[in-house]
Amino acid sequence: MPITMYDLAGIEAERRFSPFCWRAKMALAHKGLAVETVPWRFTEKDKLPKPNDGRVPVIIDDGRVVHDSTAIADYLEDRYADRPSLFGGETGRGLARFVQNWTETVLQVGLIQLVLMDIYKHIGPEDQAYFRKSREERFRTTLEDVVKNREARLPAFRASLDPLRRTVERQNFVSGKEPAYADYIVFGAFQWARAVSDFEVLAADDPVRAWRGRMLDLYDGLARRAPAYGG
Amino acid sequence: MPITMYDLAGIEAERRFSPFCWRAKMALAHKGLAVETVPWRFTEKDKLPKPNDGRVPVIIDDGRVVHDSTAIADYLEDRYADRPSLFGGETGRGLARFVQNWTETVLQVGLIQLVLMDIYKHIGPEDQAYFRKSREERFRTTLEDVVKNREARLPAFRASLDPLRRTVERQNFVSGKEPAYADYIVFGAFQWARAVSDFEVLAADDPVRAWRGRMLDLYDGLARRAPAYGG
Repeated sequence: MPITMYDLAGIEAERRFSPFCWRAKMALAHKGLAVETVPWRFTEKDKLPKPNDGRVPVIIDDGRVVHDSTAIADYLEDRYADRPSLFGGETGRGLARFVQNWTETVLQVGLIQLVLMDIYKHIGPEDQAYFRKSREERFRTTLEDVVKNREARLPAFRASLDPLRRTVERQNFVSGKEPAYADYIVFGAFQWARAVSDFEVLAADDPVRAWRGRMLDLYDGLARRAPAYGG
Repeated sequence: MPITMYDLAGIEAERRFSPFCWRAKMALAHKGLAVETVPWRFTEKDKLPKPNDGRVPVIIDDGRVVHDSTAIADYLEDRYADRPSLFGGETGRGLARFVQNWTETVLQVGLIQLVLMDIYKHIGPEDQAYFRKSREERFRTTLEDVVKNREARLPAFRASLDPLRRTVERQNFVSGKEPAYADYIVFGAFQWARAVSDFEVLAADDPVRAWRGRMLDLYDGLARRAPAYGG
């Protein structure tokens, strides 16, 4: 029986843009596990398996419910230990946390300020009301103000990618010669942006863009085939 | 026969402040290898084993000469594969590169702008002339100007440590439960600062400071026993 996964969707059911859900989908593909995704919207908290904290991804594997992308990765690594490793051992698991914390405090913080309005444009009216209220409370300003002058902020955003850039210009993946979970963490953020926004955040000759292309090619183009914009 | 290592020193021979040399010394201790260090100054390029690019660390192990901290770590890992691993496998080695690139593009770039003059104060007159010329060319301004208003820049520096902070508040080491080479990379930068400067870059209650304390305790207090300032 395939694993079921609740996956954040836009007004178009096939437009999946949660960076955390992309982490989980890439991890499932890495393990060679079949998954059936259920499109889920921000305002459908009651549709998730209980108990829930109103967030995705959530997976159901043979009756077991696992919430949260990090818990899902740990679960898959342990439950499917005989399949290709997501972490390559305990040191790799520890270091993936550093990559995750960089992604969540630098990369995603930078991206959200470029594409926030594009998310808004891709979700339904009920979700829009929820999204505007919750995000404007978080940012203490309007959605429109968050993304204002994004072209002017692009150079600083691109500079913030230096640790990633230097890594993937010297090796094929963040995790070395082969992709692993840390790559999916970073990639999830870029896939989130391109799923909703035609604003290209990477220069054409950026080594990060070449790496993103390698990620899009993985697993028969799993992420490349999904509805999204540009490269 | 112990390994010989050329180690950057101040005017006091025992004051060792190169972040790259600290990476190598911690890696040697991790492998349980004895080392005899040779104090070396910036202007003693001719004293290094040839061919050399005028930089340290350089090690000599049973006649083999290895230059550069990254090459030394790779050499030790492969040559002493039966001893505790520095990387925990190929994924860990790949991810350590990401940590290295973060350290070199964010952490060390931030630190040098806080402690540059303190390095200058701890080196001899001949080295001072070399250091002032080479660093003022690199920064395109005076040493004094680089560190000007460092108190005012401290909050931004501390904020830049968020990925590290979030990691070591949730696990004991950057590499997980146990320290590994990625920890030595990050630690080398902090040890560099404290070897020359009484300017405390970390707040007393910063989880990064608690981690630094754990690093100072390793290997019978190897780094804590070295001449340095503060915690």
